[in-house]
Amino acid sequence: MFIGKVVGSLWATRKVENTSGIKFLIVQPYNLNKAPNTDTVVVADNLGAGEGELVMVAYGRAARMALGNDDLSIEAAVIGIIDEFTIDENSYHGELDQEKLKFKK
Amino acid sequence: MFIGKVVGSLWATRKVENTSGIKFLIVQPYNLNKAPNTDTVVVADNLGAGEGELVMVAYGRAARMALGNDDLSIEAAVIGIIDEFTIDENSYHGELDQEKLKFKK
Amino acid sequence: MFIGKVVGSLWATRKVENTSGIKFLIVQPYNLNKAPNTDTVVVADNLGAGEGELVMVAYGRAARMALGNDDLSIEAAVIGIIDEFTIDENSYHGELDQEKLKFKK
Amino acid sequence: MFIGKVVGSLWATRKVENTSGIKFLIVQPYNLNKAPNTDTVVVADNLGAGEGELVMVAYGRAARMALGNDDLSIEAAVIGIIDEFTIDENSYHGELDQEKLKFKK
Amino acid sequence: MFIGKVVGSLWATRKVENTSGIKFLIVQPYNLNKAPNTDTVVVADNLGAGEGELVMVAYGRAARMALGNDDLSIEAAVIGIIDEFTIDENSYHGELDQEKLKFKK
Repeated sequence: MFIGKVVGSLWATRKVENTSGIKFLIVQPYNLNKAPNTDTVVVADNLGAGEGELVMVAYGRAARMALGNDDLSIEAAVIGIIDEFTIDENSYHGELDQEKLKFKK
Repeated sequence: MFIGKVVGSLWATRKVENTSGIKFLIVQPYNLNKAPNTDTVVVADNLGAGEGELVMVAYGRAARMALGNDDLSIEAAVIGIIDEFTIDENSYHGELDQEKLKFKK
Repeated sequence: MFIGKVVGSLWATRKVENTSGIKFLIVQPYNLNKAPNTDTVVVADNLGAGEGELVMVAYGRAARMALGNDDLSIEAAVIGIIDEFTIDENSYHGELDQEKLKFKK
Repeated sequence: MFIGKVVGSLWATRKVENTSGIKFLIVQPYNLNKAPNTDTVVVADNLGAGEGELVMVAYGRAARMALGNDDLSIEAAVIGIIDEFTIDENSYHGELDQEKLKFKK
Repeated sequence: MFIGKVVGSLWATRKVENTSGIKFLIVQPYNLNKAPNTDTVVVADNLGAGEGELVMVAYGRAARMALGNDDLSIEAAVIGIIDEFTIDENSYHGELDQEKLKFKK
């Protein structure tokens, strides 16, 4: 799964029948750098995520089970709307772990 | 799923039997930068998407269910032809979200 | 699926039993830039694709169904040998589509 | 599967019902360079991995089976907490293998 | 599937029960450039691949079937130990194929 931000939505009149009624959002994968990621992902949503919200996205069967039906023609969906997340700076910027990683010569 | 533009098509006489009669399009994943993406994806289509149109593409079982048969030898398909999509500029170019992301030291 | 060029083949005496008799090719994903892609993919083939030929490759269940058995230990296979493909230059090098993409401020 | 470091966690009140009670960690894929990877992955965990620990992560059905239920809306999970790993420097920094790779002209 | 080199191994005492007894190797995807790939992949192995050997790796259901059980919490496995592979230099460094690729204006 990944963390993304809802940045838009899309409309399609001609689409596969089994996707009828599903809301599609445009999500930008969130990274911890200043420069935003320029790729976006299209995800199904039935939790009601709004623009600017941070969401957890899952792919594949996990996404279809979020909508309750493994036969749908979708492979990405919002599985949670994030309240808060924490990053431990020491872990994140840590050096290679000299205790657990052994280089053999 | 991702948004792509139909940029071409391909022909193959010798192919896996279960793909007989399926139309294959060449799709360029769409990004929001000026420079076009140079990778392309081959996708099955039975919605009749034309060259230059923007489409929603799904992978895997989702793609096969778009053609109604999970036993086909395809893993990408058009699931919708896009009428319009909107991007919220504030969200898209937004800074790291200081309210929801907590860095611990 | 993606378009690739057959650039080599490989031999493995010790392998998983269910792959016995399967021919493996080395395929270079094809891109539209001058610089060739340096990553390669190993794919199963029973269409008889030859060196230098352009092929369509599918992943996952789609690949196994190309060999007729979802229990094989393979996840990429040739599904077609390409006769010809066309790219529409206007679409490929086109600017962002101002008619369908709306930026909100 | 890949090796990652647990760098944080996240909270979501509104989420898909079948994920209720699952603990989600933020994992940074581990690479052998000095510069840390800026992308992160969200993974389910029921082994009790703590911050700063190195873990093995699996995707897809493998992840769901780690939680004992293929119907969950998750597609990444901790499958092991790493005690130690070794890298053979000669293999890792080795040149192209001239004995097994043959270039034909 | 991809070609990789076995560069190390790892130990995990606390792990998902269904992975008990499985040997895990660290594999470096092989590319044809001089600079080695810095990402590594963790793969299950029951063919007995040794350090420095070149192997074929498969993902997903294909990997689990290599170990004979689709319910295991693994998604990458060695499916063959490579004796030799050949790359055709003309194909590999070839120009865009002007005979099969048609650009339309």
